[in-house]
Amino acid sequence: MTDRVADTPQPPYWAVIFSNVQTEAVDGYGAMAEAMERLAALQPGYLGFESARSGLGISISYWSDLDAIAAWKRQVDHLAAQRMGRERWYAAYRVRVARVERDYGFQR
Amino acid sequence: MTDRVADTPQPPYWAVIFSNVQTEAVDGYGAMAEAMERLAALQPGYLGFESARSGLGISISYWSDLDAIAAWKRQVDHLAAQRMGRERWYAAYRVRVARVERDYGFQR
Repeated sequence: MTDRVADTPQPPYWAVIFSNVQTEAVDGYGAMAEAMERLAALQPGYLGFESARSGLGISISYWSDLDAIAAWKRQVDHLAAQRMGRERWYAAYRVRVARVERDYGFQR
Repeated sequence: MTDRVADTPQPPYWAVIFSNVQTEAVDGYGAMAEAMERLAALQPGYLGFESARSGLGISISYWSDLDAIAAWKRQVDHLAAQRMGRERWYAAYRVRVARVERDYGFQR
């Protein structure tokens, strides 16, 4: 789990929003989530990551372009994690692929 | 705080991703966040809402189009909440406006 706002570049760039509800079967989940977060950061085109959970879980990965997102979706260890997610950890999820058109922020 | 994946329509539609870190001064925050969630749901073009917090807070509102997002940003009670956020509740935040191009999901 991150506790910082991701330091992304000027738009446009892409966001993969992963919204999910877990099952009761959470064994192995934390380790896999951390491994996937580290693995994502090594992929070409990776720009940043944010996540939070309280009932609903929301994880957002930021990417330079759609090709980078497609490659990450096909990455072999990530495929295994996706399968485990469907078979075991998630009661429901939705993945939304979105083009960030503008952003603005505030830092105290 | 929501605990369900938002039931959004077929893309394209828009997402406003609000990623934030709170200050220590959280008095009044919960009531305002709930009021803003209810108020957003009354706006034209509103499609859904998701949020989670664990260190980082992530709230995502979904909208039909950019005009709906612009109107919500200017809504008078929402402007007051935005000002309180900058003055009091948030140590840092980033707002990302993104066009959802595709989505897919899973429900057990």
